[in-house]
Amino acid sequence: MLNSHITLAHGNGGRYMRELITDIFARYLHNPLLDIHADAVALPMEIGEMVMTTDGFTVRPLEFPGGNIGALAVHGTTNDLAVVGAIPRYLTLNAFIEEGLEIAQLERLIASLAQTAREINVVVVAGDTKVLPRGEGSGLYLATTGLGIRNPQLKLGMNQIRAGDAILVSGSVGDHGIAVMLAREQFGLRGDLRSDAASVLPLTQALLPFSGLRFMRDPTRGGLATVAHDISQVTGYAVYLEQPQIPILEPVQVVCEMLGYDPLYLACEGRVVAVIDSAQAPAALAVWQTLPQGQQAAMIGRVVADSRPRVILKTVLGGERLLDELEDDPLPRIC
Amino acid sequence: MLNSHITLAHGNGGRYMRELITDIFARYLHNPLLDIHADAVALPMEIGEMVMTTDGFTVRPLEFPGGNIGALAVHGTTNDLAVVGAIPRYLTLNAFIEEGLEIAQLERLIASLAQTAREINVVVVAGDTKVLPRGEGSGLYLATTGLGIRNPQLKLGMNQIRAGDAILVSGSVGDHGIAVMLAREQFGLRGDLRSDAASVLPLTQALLPFSGLRFMRDPTRGGLATVAHDISQVTGYAVYLEQPQIPILEPVQVVCEMLGYDPLYLACEGRVVAVIDSAQAPAALAVWQTLPQGQQAAMIGRVVADSRPRVILKTVLGGERLLDELEDDPLPRIC
Repeated sequence: MLNSHITLAHGNGGRYMRELITDIFARYLHNPLLDIHADAVALPMEIGEMVMTTDGFTVRPLEFPGGNIGALAVHGTTNDLAVVGAIPRYLTLNAFIEEGLEIAQLERLIASLAQTAREINVVVVAGDTKVLPRGEGSGLYLATTGLGIRNPQLKLGMNQIRAGDAILVSGSVGDHGIAVMLAREQFGLRGDLRSDAASVLPLTQALLPFSGLRFMRDPTRGGLATVAHDISQVTGYAVYLEQPQIPILEPVQVVCEMLGYDPLYLACEGRVVAVIDSAQAPAALAVWQTLPQGQQAAMIGRVVADSRPRVILKTVLGGERLLDELEDDPLPRIC
Repeated sequence: MLNSHITLAHGNGGRYMRELITDIFARYLHNPLLDIHADAVALPMEIGEMVMTTDGFTVRPLEFPGGNIGALAVHGTTNDLAVVGAIPRYLTLNAFIEEGLEIAQLERLIASLAQTAREINVVVVAGDTKVLPRGEGSGLYLATTGLGIRNPQLKLGMNQIRAGDAILVSGSVGDHGIAVMLAREQFGLRGDLRSDAASVLPLTQALLPFSGLRFMRDPTRGGLATVAHDISQVTGYAVYLEQPQIPILEPVQVVCEMLGYDPLYLACEGRVVAVIDSAQAPAALAVWQTLPQGQQAAMIGRVVADSRPRVILKTVLGGERLLDELEDDPLPRIC
């Protein structure tokens, strides 16, 4: 029988840990491959190129409008597989649970994680739990590792980017960052804004048929500006972004102006930035706009062979502003 | 340029995070597959059955005689692959770093992790770092996920265990638990005892040729007694352990007697428990004893078709004692 809150004994390898795993983790995550009695699990895999990624999750609060740490732990890692052109297949899950966490909340979060995994058709095949003594965590940290499969013929990567390529974004930026920030109530603000957290798989799969597709990334920590900086630094090209074209929701804009944040540096968890041959950009954009998640998709900039690598924002008023690389953390613990 | 201690800005996705990853993680873990600019990495894989596992690490202190959290994060996960008969190939790494951790210590730990991975011939192919605000961690938590390959013909698992099978252990038990406990100095005790943390791959590979090999496990959290309980509960058989045959180092025995611990419940991080057809047990034991890590290997018990599943210790004095399933945590944060 589980108590109402997590205790250190839930982490010791004995009876309480077995009950925690059986009653919560295995109950929600059960599938033919997951074997809580095995040290490692064998995975069937179809022919293709295997791709792997991992991500950690420390978002605070654990639940926020439009998502929670459980769903985020599935979306974050499977989205990293999706943007390299893969279809996510398997996940592993690490949970670092702080002593004192309410078991009912843990159950909600793991149930949401399981539901999210089912929706994306990805299977949690292995897991581990550790209990942190009270005061040495902040409720729950998760890490997920994902394995996916992709067509070995695909050539995607920053090294494929050429001068003149167009830059697309699949939807409004900064929603996740501001939604989580509002959920903290530390600023006394409230709003109806929901996180954009979602699987980007429909968006990424929709662009794979385009031969001119060079590179995709989901703008999470550091936001759109950080993706632009990464592209610029790795390719040596400049990135020009057109401020009037970048979709930003009204409440995000308002909160950012009140608090002095720049939405271009805020995390999204369900958007894709794509770099594509400019000749194919309008068609790719049209495809995205037919998808429920891509209705606000826009062409927001291009890659330019400039005097030096840098990121320039062409402002609404027609001016140009250099976008610095992120230094101070505007909103920690956002993912 | 890195400062001397971790700050929240090292976790924000911007310049400081990039420098932390470049100067420490990528510097020590560099290999042809690891690409810090990619969201997910493609993995070449030979033909065979792919196996996957994951483990989290919260050991305290971060460094102890015979090991540290970095080396442990490699051994723990690759050992879980080894005991199912696989050869470890790839690892991913998640680091949850508390604000204020000394960067010199982080560097030592990641260097040790990298060195340990090289020794086992396993490659770290992806990673993620998150920074926890001061007071919401305890220095460093790690999670590693491992991918390995094994012969699909292998049939190992608790479901292979039969009544009459012999139980072997590859070396002394409880060394890791007591070494870490002594390193905490909370009891004012000191000693020369070193953790047994090591790769068990030579031990597990050495037994694979035995057709009568049924099951292997490394007795970590909960120790030998917990492995015996798992076997008993899953198979429905009783497990008889012969106390005089179980190798326990003198200092482990002494500390356990002083503090009232039972070494059979303490974690090892470099031992293997094997269940094998009793006819092949003497030959398997002889093979282990030729290995540097297996010199103290012993046959310590057997699986018995008894009236009900339970674990019985046949004591030095000839009596029998029921070994309970672990409830209270004797030593939290041991791995």
